Amino acid sequence: MAVKKYADLPSEVLEKGRQARTAAVALANCTAHIKNAALVLMAEALVANTNAIITANKKDIETGRANGMPEPLVDRLSLNEQRIADMAKGLREVAALPDPIGEIIEGWTRPNGLRIQKVRVPLGVVGIIYEARPNVTADAAGLCLKSGNAVILRGGKEALNSNRAIVAVMAAAAEKTGIPGGAIQLIENPSREVAAGMMRANGLIDVLIPRGGAGLIQSVIQNATVPVIETGVGNCHLYLDATADGKMATAICLNAKVQRPSVCNAIETLLVHEALGENYLVELLTELDHCGVEIRGCERTVKAFPKAKPATESDWEEEFLRLVLAVRVVNSLDDALAHIHRYSSQHSEAIVTRDPVAAERFTREIDAAAVYVNASTRFTDGFEFGFGAEIGISTQKLHARGPMGLRELTSIKYVIRGEGQVRA
Amino acid sequence: MAVKKYADLPSEVLEKGRQARTAAVALANCTAHIKNAALVLMAEALVANTNAIITANKKDIETGRANGMPEPLVDRLSLNEQRIADMAKGLREVAALPDPIGEIIEGWTRPNGLRIQKVRVPLGVVGIIYEARPNVTADAAGLCLKSGNAVILRGGKEALNSNRAIVAVMAAAAEKTGIPGGAIQLIENPSREVAAGMMRANGLIDVLIPRGGAGLIQSVIQNATVPVIETGVGNCHLYLDATADGKMATAICLNAKVQRPSVCNAIETLLVHEALGENYLVELLTELDHCGVEIRGCERTVKAFPKAKPATESDWEEEFLRLVLAVRVVNSLDDALAHIHRYSSQHSEAIVTRDPVAAERFTREIDAAAVYVNASTRFTDGFEFGFGAEIGISTQKLHARGPMGLRELTSIKYVIRGEGQVRA
Repeated sequence: MAVKKYADLPSEVLEKGRQARTAAVALANCTAHIKNAALVLMAEALVANTNAIITANKKDIETGRANGMPEPLVDRLSLNEQRIADMAKGLREVAALPDPIGEIIEGWTRPNGLRIQKVRVPLGVVGIIYEARPNVTADAAGLCLKSGNAVILRGGKEALNSNRAIVAVMAAAAEKTGIPGGAIQLIENPSREVAAGMMRANGLIDVLIPRGGAGLIQSVIQNATVPVIETGVGNCHLYLDATADGKMATAICLNAKVQRPSVCNAIETLLVHEALGENYLVELLTELDHCGVEIRGCERTVKAFPKAKPATESDWEEEFLRLVLAVRVVNSLDDALAHIHRYSSQHSEAIVTRDPVAAERFTREIDAAAVYVNASTRFTDGFEFGFGAEIGISTQKLHARGPMGLRELTSIKYVIRGEGQVRA
Repeated sequence: MAVKKYADLPSEVLEKGRQARTAAVALANCTAHIKNAALVLMAEALVANTNAIITANKKDIETGRANGMPEPLVDRLSLNEQRIADMAKGLREVAALPDPIGEIIEGWTRPNGLRIQKVRVPLGVVGIIYEARPNVTADAAGLCLKSGNAVILRGGKEALNSNRAIVAVMAAAAEKTGIPGGAIQLIENPSREVAAGMMRANGLIDVLIPRGGAGLIQSVIQNATVPVIETGVGNCHLYLDATADGKMATAICLNAKVQRPSVCNAIETLLVHEALGENYLVELLTELDHCGVEIRGCERTVKAFPKAKPATESDWEEEFLRLVLAVRVVNSLDDALAHIHRYSSQHSEAIVTRDPVAAERFTREIDAAAVYVNASTRFTDGFEFGFGAEIGISTQKLHARGPMGLRELTSIKYVIRGEGQVRA
């Protein structure tokens, strides 16, 4: 219902939620011209205010270091001239993308003469809950604005000064072109209670997208009454079929494991058909070993490649996100499918094969956001798919699955035109 | 993650959830032939077992009456030969619909040669939580089966004997054609703990669809960690613009309020532009009064039609679901839009007008699942939209909005084919 009593919401969520709600009504009807002009101005303003943003960021870094923040996190938190220029570039790229809003997805006429159109509209108010990565602030604000959504950002408290500076600059720039004030909101109270309040702000927030580690995402799923899009976890498999081209298989395996092991579309388990032979297996594992990959293998793997550690049950379940690979020799495609059904997080799964029947079975039977034949799982990405942008990779089946671009930040409405039709 | 510890789930949810999960894998790959044959056999079996189902239903009715169940609820619970024949007819109609699964929604080739297809797949396991209406049991099972989903049904405990009989008949019939056992599951433990367990069975259930009154739906939204599709509440408005054709406006108003006042797509508030004049207003309200509609009006309405009661703030907020109508005279389209923005539940909203600019503004600015120009809100319905079926009407913006047919019971996956592509 539109009229709600929000007595139990923290005041900041209530206030900013209401402002965002009001802004969303106007923003839904902003033309692409206005939105694109805003994005370009926002990009220019970020660059023009580089020094102020870096000054704010330095405060965050100092506090972080004083509190013993590990260096990799300090690195993710840190901004410099180049990183701010990259944020601005991202906003300009979003400005150049087609506007998803107003698309007539389909239309038809009913026997009684009613004309029905299914039209793409914004979601309304999007809540983003994320960690101490200030680049997400600009990124998410840009994508939400382009898709006609007001956004409420709740970044990690360690980045609060940086986020304040970035949002202030962007919001001021956006308003100059006619974007309603309140379209870009930042939660400034760092308490968990305020984040929890966002999660149950039904009626004020239409959807929550958590971006970050598994802990953050699970916390949102467990506590939210607002609809959530789950993102992130990828326990991805590569299966080398009996007929795989060995050279292709090796290239794909190295790419999928080694090129960037810390991301969700990298593989964690390799399944190798026994028909490829022990020589091939040893050759492949040796190459992986040279790349610094630690192998945790099934019995047959360890026998063939004694440097491998024996894999435990938890190795098949774990998303390593580092240079560790679980390896199992399988007797058949059926065994590979069964293993994947059991352990997959339904993110990205790949087969290398020269057998079209095996390829068809794999693509039909594997239930995952992205299923690959003879290509690396690393392509599961909004840019690689050609969406021109990415707000995250959905690992649920409702609303969006796989890489989410601008279209995945939209909903639909039906517009029905008649000349006096009534229901019999 | 696919491998989960479900230690805190009630045993019935765990057991039936796992069976449904396993069945869903096989069901996703059943051909339309097999699914349609199953639906027809299920229909035949329902009719052939009419007596057994009615016997079971009588037990529920006796218990219900003994516990003081109100007669309208007893009527919704009651089955007879005709109602069972209607359930069977519904299953046959679903069999005749096109299979949504396997549709290639779109496809494109990337500059690196990767071919990407977006393919329609089932959601997986759908949970339906509903009230003591045994017809929903057959209806939901049929729609889920056709869309390739396993289903876990949790109906009102007052209908348990009826549901048991219906599910036993349907499941046995379905298995004869090759549908995997476990595809249609009924929760038999009537406790709230078991229903609550369904709501947090992430990993076993992909989506929950509550069907019933506002209390049931809110309870699911508040307690579920599994993604939910919110259905139901309709605080719908009809706005008669300054240029409205009076005769058309009256016909649409009577249809939208009187034809079936108890449903979510009936109107609850009428907004009348002052330019239509007091004579017209009195004429219209007199007709509504003759149909037994109680009018609760703004000051100007009460002045023109003294039989109307003065409307209170809560009258603009309430979904009456009965022959009560709130009426407000407005000065302009802007006033009408502002009223609807404030009170709408974003279900169905209508304008009657002869002014194309007013029609365009209304359809663009009103944010609702269905926005009508010169037609009754009563058309918001899967059958009236031409979907051939309906599992409910979504009032949220995520995944599905408005009437949900077979397509809204599906998800997508990306299938990517290459010849050895790796990411640079």
